[in-house]
Amino acid sequence: MKRRDFITAVAASAGSAYAAMKALDLLEQPATAQVPSQTGPFRLQRRGSRKRVIILGAGLAGMAAAYELGKVGYECVILEARSRAGGRCWTLRGGDTLTEINGTTQTVQFDRGLYFNPGPARIPYHHVTIDYCKELGVELEVIVNLSRQQYFYQENAGPLSGQKVHVREAVTDMRGYISELLAKSINQNALNASLTTEDKERLIEFLRTYGGLDPDLFYQGSSRRGYATPQGAGLQPGEVADPYDLSALLQLGFAGNEAFEWGFDQQMTMFQPVGGMDQIAKAFERRVGNSINYEAVVKEIRKLPDGVGIVYTDRSGQRRIRGDYCICTIPLSVLRDIPSDFSPDMKEAIASVAYAVTGKSGLQFNRRFWEEDENIFGGISWTNQDINQIWYPSNDYLSRKGVMLGYYNFGSTAANVGALSPQERVSLAIEQGSKIHPQYKNHFENGLALFWSNIPYSLGGWASYTTDVRTQYYPRLNEPDGNIYLAGEHLSYLTGWMAGAFESARLVTAKINALA
Amino acid sequence: MKRRDFITAVAASAGSAYAAMKALDLLEQPATAQVPSQTGPFRLQRRGSRKRVIILGAGLAGMAAAYELGKVGYECVILEARSRAGGRCWTLRGGDTLTEINGTTQTVQFDRGLYFNPGPARIPYHHVTIDYCKELGVELEVIVNLSRQQYFYQENAGPLSGQKVHVREAVTDMRGYISELLAKSINQNALNASLTTEDKERLIEFLRTYGGLDPDLFYQGSSRRGYATPQGAGLQPGEVADPYDLSALLQLGFAGNEAFEWGFDQQMTMFQPVGGMDQIAKAFERRVGNSINYEAVVKEIRKLPDGVGIVYTDRSGQRRIRGDYCICTIPLSVLRDIPSDFSPDMKEAIASVAYAVTGKSGLQFNRRFWEEDENIFGGISWTNQDINQIWYPSNDYLSRKGVMLGYYNFGSTAANVGALSPQERVSLAIEQGSKIHPQYKNHFENGLALFWSNIPYSLGGWASYTTDVRTQYYPRLNEPDGNIYLAGEHLSYLTGWMAGAFESARLVTAKINALA
Repeated sequence: MKRRDFITAVAASAGSAYAAMKALDLLEQPATAQVPSQTGPFRLQRRGSRKRVIILGAGLAGMAAAYELGKVGYECVILEARSRAGGRCWTLRGGDTLTEINGTTQTVQFDRGLYFNPGPARIPYHHVTIDYCKELGVELEVIVNLSRQQYFYQENAGPLSGQKVHVREAVTDMRGYISELLAKSINQNALNASLTTEDKERLIEFLRTYGGLDPDLFYQGSSRRGYATPQGAGLQPGEVADPYDLSALLQLGFAGNEAFEWGFDQQMTMFQPVGGMDQIAKAFERRVGNSINYEAVVKEIRKLPDGVGIVYTDRSGQRRIRGDYCICTIPLSVLRDIPSDFSPDMKEAIASVAYAVTGKSGLQFNRRFWEEDENIFGGISWTNQDINQIWYPSNDYLSRKGVMLGYYNFGSTAANVGALSPQERVSLAIEQGSKIHPQYKNHFENGLALFWSNIPYSLGGWASYTTDVRTQYYPRLNEPDGNIYLAGEHLSYLTGWMAGAFESARLVTAKINALA
Repeated sequence: MKRRDFITAVAASAGSAYAAMKALDLLEQPATAQVPSQTGPFRLQRRGSRKRVIILGAGLAGMAAAYELGKVGYECVILEARSRAGGRCWTLRGGDTLTEINGTTQTVQFDRGLYFNPGPARIPYHHVTIDYCKELGVELEVIVNLSRQQYFYQENAGPLSGQKVHVREAVTDMRGYISELLAKSINQNALNASLTTEDKERLIEFLRTYGGLDPDLFYQGSSRRGYATPQGAGLQPGEVADPYDLSALLQLGFAGNEAFEWGFDQQMTMFQPVGGMDQIAKAFERRVGNSINYEAVVKEIRKLPDGVGIVYTDRSGQRRIRGDYCICTIPLSVLRDIPSDFSPDMKEAIASVAYAVTGKSGLQFNRRFWEEDENIFGGISWTNQDINQIWYPSNDYLSRKGVMLGYYNFGSTAANVGALSPQERVSLAIEQGSKIHPQYKNHFENGLALFWSNIPYSLGGWASYTTDVRTQYYPRLNEPDGNIYLAGEHLSYLTGWMAGAFESARLVTAKINALA
């Protein structure tokens, strides 16, 4: 077995860059940490290589790869189709233009200082993205993914249809009813489960606190759901309203929306860079920008006997470049249509992966009515209308104007909305959002709406694997084809997250460094 | 009935300043708001009064009263025993000294830029405090009261004793088991409750999502609790660990700690001022500082035929001042021992109110190991040790050093710890905290610890009413005694919160303005 094959096999079977590199002792040893972090420090071992790596795409995966390889002496050349770096890690500000593949162009009208992240907008506390923000000096602030003042607003969903139900009301009441029902069931000895008497007693005590039950184990409402008349000074103890009816809450159908915020990738603490998500892209661009060729559109990807050859066009016409290795971070939705020497099984794998169908809208309002009128600071309201979600800004609290996320939708809903003109999409966001916030109509100033399937060089939100495709094709995508390595969020189990791009870049650079 | 009596009666029966003032039409009409906020705009009606109001205490209640009365032309004089304004709204920085009533003095050793809020440290999204921050230009940032990476660390609590159990693990598992048990109970038709068949089906579907149950409605763990091996790039799908045993979780006894974060006053979104809680005090001080007499210790509170007389000492000796009205914000724990002309029923009421027994510690570390090693960003770890809570800073993320809250305890635990010397308290915080974070011992630099019952001019945390005292004495405290009005957090149902002080100041200024 050749060293190269051995290393590749170890890297592939170990799965992660860390595991592979640890096995192969190819990482610099970090300073002793008393408690190992989940992600851990990453530093390629300097091996004296001066190989040239052509990187396709100056998104986060491409720039991170160039950054890590550059640290240990590789020559990297990045080809980027757009005139900016960052790919989907993108922030829109006043004056920016936004052109979709059908030719419609929007010019962003936001006031100076306002912005909108149309792509990734959140960073979980456990993602390697945080490590890069620290390493590159990107300032972070909390994005409030979970707050209790937001609304569930559902249509055709029983007695609470068309009502603004505060999240805290719905979740407090459901927790109360669940606790009451289970406590009753235990007390009636109805629970056919192997609980000891002691555990039954402990569980009832747990439920009493968990559900906010009264001494007789009934749920009768709780101050956790807020006050009908507030607590205050003087003789104002506050009054708690009656809970919603259990049947009405069940028909409201918010379990998925509540559970969303418990997902490992959606739990608090979540972050956003101060000033826009593209601060991460810009931080990388400051390190590797000299290697980026902008407006360089890849036309052919070729295997050469001793490396790779890339044909691309830029402002001066068609050009050709060769390298020892290629790291291709082009989304598979785009890559599938680029002429290449990929082997048939790789081409089949590339074509097999569907991309998330998704759209977002950003709306500028001349008054932060959600803060001033409704005490809403960050967080998400959920609705079964086409707009699906409304996000309130987690930055510049108490200032005058603000940009809200007017919708974030998926699948066939996103496709239907995406089929509209940008102006019609914004109108839809205003119309449906107005049902939750009537203030929309008086305070809306301007907006944008984009459909990711229509965004050139992205053509979709993120790789959306079925179990079958993960099983059948994903392993092939993780193998190099000649000296060409695929990287990006689509080469990870953190699809749709910036961390997927970073982890993939680290894995692929480690694999190349092990060989070079 | 005299106008004065009528107005006082209305104000008292209406309970809140807003209700009273609305009833009496004594508030300026705000510009039309489409959706009324819970707190609402506040502005006293200008009535041409030039009355003089002596305000005892330059804490938040006293300064807010002076601020509101000053807007409409009253002459306010504030007597403040300390050499600083803000009272319990206080931030400690390097060089500050901290003397307790037994004479022990600590000099804070924090590095420049580091600080600790020994008093109030959180602002709920629905409190009037936010309105004042907006009005006075105090910049806010999110304090992460709820995060999922924190720990429950319990001793003598069954099989999980002495283990660092991530909050997300414990709460995910308990939610799973609760859902499984209730779903089973419903499926066995064991639930003797009036649910329709449809609602039973809906509830089971709800629980399936709520609990993260498998197709057979068993809880077998969930990625919501995190991964034993993380998801990553390449062939690393991540592995979910088995859940904790239900009996072990029940013995861990964390229901109260979990439910804490659901309280209406503890729910996300919560805020803190950028740079320390005293930014609020300083903002008021900038408006009313000219009216404050510092180091002015009240010695006597006298009723005069036409107003009030206050005897106090300052650097130049004993002084005497008279006013038309007095707003007394001195904590009842201090006020009870000041010679006064309060009527016997008022004196009895003042003496009846107990104060919360509580202490806090702030610890400076030279490395943010909680972020670097453990992915903890803000939030609270809970333990049944004497330290009770550890708070991780919600500011200056990813910077080098940081100040954590080393303990926050109450009642007899706080009294026991408070009986120690400051140095011994800090040692205790280090010793017990080290069980959760072994990094403490290598990275601790300096710390402080205070016991609120020992802090001069406070003598306790906050008014802690029993139901009996609320019923029997609280109404009297809310009545003026002659022209003397009590104000402060203790004259509200928001005891312990800055909002209680503000609401009380507004109520009392409105009552005085209605008469003046």
